[in-house]
Amino acid sequence: MTFKDDSKLFAAACPIPLDQYPHVTLAHGGGGRLMHQLIEKCFIGAFGALNPESRHDAALLPRLTGRLAFTTDSYVVHPLFFPGGDIGSMAVHGTVNDLAMAGARPLYLSTGFILEEGLPMETLWRVVQSMQSAAAEAGVRIVTGDTKVVDRGKGDGLFINTAGVGVIEHDRIIAPVSVKPGDAILINGDLGRHGIAIMAVREGLEFETTIESDSASVSGTVQKLIDAGIEIHCLRDLTRGGLASTLNEIADATRTEICVKELAIAVREDVRGACEMLGFDPLYVANEGRFAAFIAASDAARALEILRADSPDSQASIIGSVVGPSDPGLVTLTSRIGANRVLDMLSGEQLPRIC
Amino acid sequence: MTFKDDSKLFAAACPIPLDQYPHVTLAHGGGGRLMHQLIEKCFIGAFGALNPESRHDAALLPRLTGRLAFTTDSYVVHPLFFPGGDIGSMAVHGTVNDLAMAGARPLYLSTGFILEEGLPMETLWRVVQSMQSAAAEAGVRIVTGDTKVVDRGKGDGLFINTAGVGVIEHDRIIAPVSVKPGDAILINGDLGRHGIAIMAVREGLEFETTIESDSASVSGTVQKLIDAGIEIHCLRDLTRGGLASTLNEIADATRTEICVKELAIAVREDVRGACEMLGFDPLYVANEGRFAAFIAASDAARALEILRADSPDSQASIIGSVVGPSDPGLVTLTSRIGANRVLDMLSGEQLPRIC
Repeated sequence: MTFKDDSKLFAAACPIPLDQYPHVTLAHGGGGRLMHQLIEKCFIGAFGALNPESRHDAALLPRLTGRLAFTTDSYVVHPLFFPGGDIGSMAVHGTVNDLAMAGARPLYLSTGFILEEGLPMETLWRVVQSMQSAAAEAGVRIVTGDTKVVDRGKGDGLFINTAGVGVIEHDRIIAPVSVKPGDAILINGDLGRHGIAIMAVREGLEFETTIESDSASVSGTVQKLIDAGIEIHCLRDLTRGGLASTLNEIADATRTEICVKELAIAVREDVRGACEMLGFDPLYVANEGRFAAFIAASDAARALEILRADSPDSQASIIGSVVGPSDPGLVTLTSRIGANRVLDMLSGEQLPRIC
Repeated sequence: MTFKDDSKLFAAACPIPLDQYPHVTLAHGGGGRLMHQLIEKCFIGAFGALNPESRHDAALLPRLTGRLAFTTDSYVVHPLFFPGGDIGSMAVHGTVNDLAMAGARPLYLSTGFILEEGLPMETLWRVVQSMQSAAAEAGVRIVTGDTKVVDRGKGDGLFINTAGVGVIEHDRIIAPVSVKPGDAILINGDLGRHGIAIMAVREGLEFETTIESDSASVSGTVQKLIDAGIEIHCLRDLTRGGLASTLNEIADATRTEICVKELAIAVREDVRGACEMLGFDPLYVANEGRFAAFIAASDAARALEILRADSPDSQASIIGSVVGPSDPGLVTLTSRIGANRVLDMLSGEQLPRIC
């Protein structure tokens, strides 16, 4: 495990006495006193209790009006801490973003911890604080959770599952089914930083400047597009498999041809250099705060303005469009020198345990 | 891993070509073709798709009226298959039961798989079928999911997280806050079978008859109590830590004294024998289909009738009552020979990875 010295994560001292319990033990998952201490002090201490008067196995949510979106993701990223984030902030951002991609306003998260016996208690506490800080920033609450401990050697420090519930407050159907030929395709910024940030830590690579993960909640940005009445047809985050896999999924699901221009896709020079060195194509590298938006062409310019105003440094851009029906779906890329090539789906494994 | 030869789990042949992919590989979690094949054929093949026309990272749920309950649990049980169940059926029962304990009607589940590289593909398929069969039986749908693969040696075959959403269709507050002195305490059957079933497989113990786990959805039973208008104050499943820990939690949360009678608590003879041999107290052993109900004394007899009619063989019983305020909360047991002793909360670890 690698540790990032981020003092903001040490805002509050660990509420579990570290001299007594420096590490997670099997008893912390056993249903007895130690588990209750962990839940009360560490988890509820950080996340708060939604129904303090009726503490329960399930959280009771206030009445919600509108259609609901429901999603889940497990996080097994290695290492647990990396420049720009950690497994805790990612576990919040990833699930918040999945809800946002359905056009929902994320509201509530659950969290399931699978701890390996021997995990430093302080590591767990740092991750939990990071989750809470990411949740507060994204406007969601962590309302219910579970802890399991597996024997040493049967896990890898810490895995986190989060599930999320959000509410859809508009009548649009934001989904592949709404994608139409002519739609403009926008992305909200430069690509490849999350994957390269992880890889750099794993391989001990050093660059002139530290490449930080782009891990972030995009829910606020999506909300701005919705509030402005932009005709959004589909949204998809560019995580495992990167932009190329996402576009292939959408082309395949909608039986359309998608054309994008390499020159319009921002990749930072240091990220591009690292990709060349490692033999990666940045279009296939995972991001954790980037998404593609399929938008009615007439609203594309306005949507781009909103994305750029929301994050002036991120290099949001219109990268291409849906050109017409195609069976099977097809993604073509016009390269920097003007040549066209098919951008295929990743067939093997580029970078394991990136999220 | 131990395999149970249960032909019902082989109702459908594995849709992933086993000669080509006999084992899960890192690429099955990589976001590319293999992951998509796994999702489409194995998971959607078994669970169906809720929104086939708008396949998405999040499931869109129909509008729900009423308060919502939201819960999560991870399952790390070892071994994956055991008499009376497997990790898949447990992952459904456990989360369904957590919702039922809040008085909710369970409706939708998410599932997050953390697979270890090298897991036999057929094992995964059997577990997935078992989940679907348990979900159908419990009246819930598995609507959204996620797959991660960790490198060999960094997991233990298969971990599953399920989160669940249910709807509360009545105005009762079924929670510790509603528990009152005078309440009768009922349990819906005999104790200790889940823990002993797991332990027997782990330790290679053989009994005259196979002890099967009690793993089951109790949602239907709870619904019957609610539909009959029984004045339910609190429900709690008797999982990790067993009955003793549950009663202590409730006594502690409600600052009351709880008295129960050992003679009223059913433990099968073979389970009692196994407990004696292994040095376990059946009151602390985990169950996966048993719950305690805190019920207004005036409704206790009628509630017992319903429990017994629902499952005539299970030996449901009234085990005691909430006798009055006490600070701190206290649980006393009147033993078979009439002596009283304090039933304390488990302090260490009795049986790791039981769920």
